Amino acid sequence: MLKLSRIFLPLLVASFATNACADELNTTAQVVELLTASDWRKPDPSQLMVMELPDGVVVMELAADFAPKNVANIRTLAEEHYFDGLAIIRSQDNYVVQWADPAEGDDARSLGSAAATVPPEFQRSSSDIEINTIDSRDAYADIVGFADGFPTASDGEHAWLTHCYGMVGVARGNETDSGNGSSLYVITGHAPRHLDRNITLVGRVLSGIELLSALPRGTGPLGFYETAEEYAAIVSIRMGDEAMSDHLEVMRTDTDAFAEYLRSRTFRNEEWFVEPTGRIELCNVIPPVRNAD
Amino acid sequence: MLKLSRIFLPLLVASFATNACADELNTTAQVVELLTASDWRKPDPSQLMVMELPDGVVVMELAADFAPKNVANIRTLAEEHYFDGLAIIRSQDNYVVQWADPAEGDDARSLGSAAATVPPEFQRSSSDIEINTIDSRDAYADIVGFADGFPTASDGEHAWLTHCYGMVGVARGNETDSGNGSSLYVITGHAPRHLDRNITLVGRVLSGIELLSALPRGTGPLGFYETAEEYAAIVSIRMGDEAMSDHLEVMRTDTDAFAEYLRSRTFRNEEWFVEPTGRIELCNVIPPVRNAD
Repeated sequence: MLKLSRIFLPLLVASFATNACADELNTTAQVVELLTASDWRKPDPSQLMVMELPDGVVVMELAADFAPKNVANIRTLAEEHYFDGLAIIRSQDNYVVQWADPAEGDDARSLGSAAATVPPEFQRSSSDIEINTIDSRDAYADIVGFADGFPTASDGEHAWLTHCYGMVGVARGNETDSGNGSSLYVITGHAPRHLDRNITLVGRVLSGIELLSALPRGTGPLGFYETAEEYAAIVSIRMGDEAMSDHLEVMRTDTDAFAEYLRSRTFRNEEWFVEPTGRIELCNVIPPVRNAD
Repeated sequence: MLKLSRIFLPLLVASFATNACADELNTTAQVVELLTASDWRKPDPSQLMVMELPDGVVVMELAADFAPKNVANIRTLAEEHYFDGLAIIRSQDNYVVQWADPAEGDDARSLGSAAATVPPEFQRSSSDIEINTIDSRDAYADIVGFADGFPTASDGEHAWLTHCYGMVGVARGNETDSGNGSSLYVITGHAPRHLDRNITLVGRVLSGIELLSALPRGTGPLGFYETAEEYAAIVSIRMGDEAMSDHLEVMRTDTDAFAEYLRSRTFRNEEWFVEPTGRIELCNVIPPVRNAD
C-alpha cells in the first residue's frame, strides 16, 4: 500500500490576491528564522560520501534505501581507495559533471573487491516508502515529494529518485547493469527529468557543489575533456565522515515547519514579488542545507 | 483572441510500450539529420546583442516584441558604449550571473541618453501573439510553448517569457519600474519559474553561455563577488552584429520538423533508454542553436 503523508498546501491564487490574510503569510526568511533544532537533521555519517578536491570537499548524502546494491558497491570502491587520484573527465554545460578512471583497457585501475556489473535500481516498490508529497503539477510524474529527504516521484506503484540539480547517479552504458559506481555523475543544470527511471540515482550533494558546477566545460562531444591537462584531479573519495556530519544540517521534510517552508515558496510574500505565483515545482524546493557551526 | 497553433504530441505511454510502430519513431539525432535548411532560421541581426569578454563572446537574441521599452533602453545603453569596461559582479550557483556598473553613487557611470526607469514588461496581451504550444503538464502555467522561438507561457489572456536556463532579464529593485537594463542577468541553473511575471525578460543566450555559467561562484550573499579582483571584465556589449547572425542558426519552432523534434524528446527511442518517459517539459526543449559555418 502506498503510504502518503500529504502536506496541505492551499493553491488558491485568486483568493490569495484578495485575501487580507495573505499579508500574514511568512516569507521564507521568516519561516527559516522560526525553525527549531528539531526541524533540522544531521545526516547519518555512514551515508556520507566525501570527495576531496585540491580546492575543497564535496559532501554527498547517499540514499541506500533507494539503491542498496549500487551504494554498497560504491562503498567498497571508496573503502579500497579506488577513486583516489582519478579525475573529473566531463563537464557538459547545463547537464552533468562526471568522474571516472580516465585510463581504459589494460591501463584501467582494478575494481578490487567491487563488482563490475550491478543490477539497476531505477525504481523501487512504493509500498514500503513514505513520501511527504507536495501539491505540484509535475510534468513527469503524478506524485512528487520527498522520501528520506530526497526528491522523489511515484506513480502509486513504484517510487524513484528524481534528477534535480545536485543529484548523484551511476553512469552506465547501454546495458542496464553496466553501471558499477566507478563512474558517477552530478546534475549541474536544469533538471533532466527524462533520465528518471533510466539510470540509478544514489544520492545528493549537500555541500561543495560549486567545486563541480563551476568547472570549465569540456569542449569534446557531450562535454568530455579532450586532453588529460583539462582533467580535474580527485584527491580522494571516502565514506562515513563523522566530522562532516557534525558540520551539516539538512531541513527535515516530514515536519509542519517544512510545510510552512513550502507555503512560503509557493506564495512569495517578500516585498519584491508582485505575482505570488501560487505554484511550486519539486526541483525548485530541494531541502536547504546549513552549516551547523 | 488567443491564436494557438497546437503541435500534436500523442502522450500515449501505455500504447507506446506495446505498439510495434514505436520502433519506427526517429531518435533526436535522426530527426536533426533530416532537417532541411528551411527548418532553421538565422536570427535577425538587429535583435542580436554581443557581449565581448576577454575569453570570447556571448551572443544573445533579444525579444523586442515581448519587452519593447526595455529592449530599446538596452539598445541605447549599448549604442552609447555604456557597458564597455563594466563587470560581471555576481555568480550565484544554480541561479544567475549578473552584470552591472560596480561603482555606486557619485562614482557610477552616467546612463547617457537612456532612461533611469522603464515600465515593467512582465507580460503582454496574448491576443496578438502566436504560441506554438507543446503538450506538457507545466507546474506554473496552463499553456506553454514557443513564441518567436522563445519559451513562453500563457493563461489565455496574457503571455510571458519563462525563466528557463539561458534566459536574459532586467535586474530590478523593489519598484517594478526600477530596472533599466544597465544591470542584466542570465539564468544559469534550474529554471526559477517563480520569477515569471515578476521581472522583465528580454531575450536568450544563443551561444557562449559557458563563459558565464562556469564563472567562479561569488562568496558573498546571493553570490555577489566580494572584492573587485573577483569581477569578470566586460570588454564591450554591442547590438546588431551581422557577422554573428551569419554564424548562427536556431531551430524554428513553427514547423512540422520541430513537432518531430519534440516527439523525439518525448518518446526517447535511443537504444540507451529503457523508459521512454512519454512526457516533456518546456525548459528541457529549448530550441537548439547550431553553428552555420
